[in-house]
Amino acid sequence: MNTSPPTIAITMGDPAGVGPELCLRALTAPKVREVCRPIIIGDAQILNRCAHQLSLPKPEHVWELASWSQEGRHATSSGVLHIPAFTQDSFQPGQITAETGRASFAYIETAIALAKQAEIAAVTTGPISKEALALANIPFPGHTEIFATRTASDRWCMMQFAPEIVCTFVTVHVGYAEVPQLLSVERILEVIELTADAMRRLKGPDPVLVVCGLNPHAGEHGLFGNREEERLVIPAIAAAREQGIKVIGPLPADTAFIPERRRTTDAFVCLYHDQGHIPVKALAFDSAVNTTLGLPIVRTSVDHGTACDIAWTGQARPDSLYAALRLAAVLSNS
Amino acid sequence: MNTSPPTIAITMGDPAGVGPELCLRALTAPKVREVCRPIIIGDAQILNRCAHQLSLPKPEHVWELASWSQEGRHATSSGVLHIPAFTQDSFQPGQITAETGRASFAYIETAIALAKQAEIAAVTTGPISKEALALANIPFPGHTEIFATRTASDRWCMMQFAPEIVCTFVTVHVGYAEVPQLLSVERILEVIELTADAMRRLKGPDPVLVVCGLNPHAGEHGLFGNREEERLVIPAIAAAREQGIKVIGPLPADTAFIPERRRTTDAFVCLYHDQGHIPVKALAFDSAVNTTLGLPIVRTSVDHGTACDIAWTGQARPDSLYAALRLAAVLSNS
Repeated sequence: MNTSPPTIAITMGDPAGVGPELCLRALTAPKVREVCRPIIIGDAQILNRCAHQLSLPKPEHVWELASWSQEGRHATSSGVLHIPAFTQDSFQPGQITAETGRASFAYIETAIALAKQAEIAAVTTGPISKEALALANIPFPGHTEIFATRTASDRWCMMQFAPEIVCTFVTVHVGYAEVPQLLSVERILEVIELTADAMRRLKGPDPVLVVCGLNPHAGEHGLFGNREEERLVIPAIAAAREQGIKVIGPLPADTAFIPERRRTTDAFVCLYHDQGHIPVKALAFDSAVNTTLGLPIVRTSVDHGTACDIAWTGQARPDSLYAALRLAAVLSNS
Repeated sequence: MNTSPPTIAITMGDPAGVGPELCLRALTAPKVREVCRPIIIGDAQILNRCAHQLSLPKPEHVWELASWSQEGRHATSSGVLHIPAFTQDSFQPGQITAETGRASFAYIETAIALAKQAEIAAVTTGPISKEALALANIPFPGHTEIFATRTASDRWCMMQFAPEIVCTFVTVHVGYAEVPQLLSVERILEVIELTADAMRRLKGPDPVLVVCGLNPHAGEHGLFGNREEERLVIPAIAAAREQGIKVIGPLPADTAFIPERRRTTDAFVCLYHDQGHIPVKALAFDSAVNTTLGLPIVRTSVDHGTACDIAWTGQARPDSLYAALRLAAVLSNS
């Protein structure tokens, strides 16, 4: 059994955002070093410039890709794996461009490749700009889709994890009106299975899951809605129970998240983005971590954006990154 | 200026539910008597039987409808306005029937009539059973529709009020999929106006309102959804601002309810049931009060159902009823 802390790659995110300064803070934070060996996948020059500007310590070590595989991966110090994807010529902190988008994408691709080769134990992603990716003509709306495609995963879902509440999602970044036609027994069952598997690793055997209904009062026996609960949710729950998974529901979404129910529930399976993100952010705004279940590699993420308005000023709070690293460490050890 | 506490009618709710015992407790509770003179509109015999069963004090006074208008309304003691709508022959606590539904409806109709004649200052409604109303062929899905119809109100909306969070609703008891076609600039503006008016009475001049978007991330500039934010929400907000109402939005629903935003927001205008009920119940499960804005009379309500499984056992908690009475007192004095 390996007792040394896992090596976790932190992708630097968009150079123009708050990613560089948060990564620098993570390298030396005791609560990070207790659980993992952090390695930034990003740009050493940008990091040095950011460290200089904010009077933060520069990274202890810098490796190139070749020296990483030879030496870096076997070392124990934190540091940077330098990816020379970026020229700083016209770079302005706070201003995303096609080039910052292209660079942030290169860090992610490197991290995924190293994780697939088991040269790192997990990936925690720093914030990227969807707009910058689009400027660079990179055809992905976000991290999750990049990870799913590059690892050839076809069964995956988003999880929002916080001490106060854990939610997984049957649908995520689609319009409100599209949700009903995207629901199916198969997809709901898939997310229940992914959730049960993740919660077994995180909390132990026999986790208790709750599945939310779609309509007010979970439809109140067909009074509201198109019987989505009877047609889609109840059969998925029945199939999950046949596998021995402890699932309750469909519960009305409004009473699902009351304190008493939260105390007895390990995770909530939510049918759409705001159904789960509303309680997660209301109850655990600073501590929630985003992770993608169903990938062959461990991936967690900060739960905020590039925050370009405060980038490179030292104001960004690293709590979400630290929480993401801690969850990555737990998942990579389980 | 009238300085005696307002007389507030509490409809007893369904006799088979927890209404009778909660009403009995309210009659003598110091935190109720501090803010109002409570009068139960219900059945004196049922209340006496319930008091006997649970060793609670019997009501101090009982009036019939005639003696109420003559004497009762001018008295100062709490008590019961007895409506003989019910025979107890086959009555079982916990078991709703057509007759319990019919009786609960009679209490509501009396309360509305008295409030319209200003013989009472406000109505707080005890829990009724939609199923019992249906058994009695009473063509209303719930309290709100009864109050709106009987007061000939055509501009109204639901408000959920708690110290932690206040939400109003553009749509309420309709299926998830029906919401988009029920949204209009006019209706959203109407709810903004009703909310601003109520919050002025409750909190003072210039309340700050937030309107939520419909889609994830409030559509992210058309990336998700059918531009409901641009087509419907933004024009309604613009029209409200022209009236001098302070409105922010459309905000993504998930970040609308984070602690920092709640501190600076007096009320949230929500587009559908669960968008507002999820944070209200997650944050303020025991203290939320339901009220109907836009009626010519003040109406508040307990925020729970008949709870027939624990009815007449003394286990029901009166917190929600007490909170509803306090809000009714504030609204009737403003």
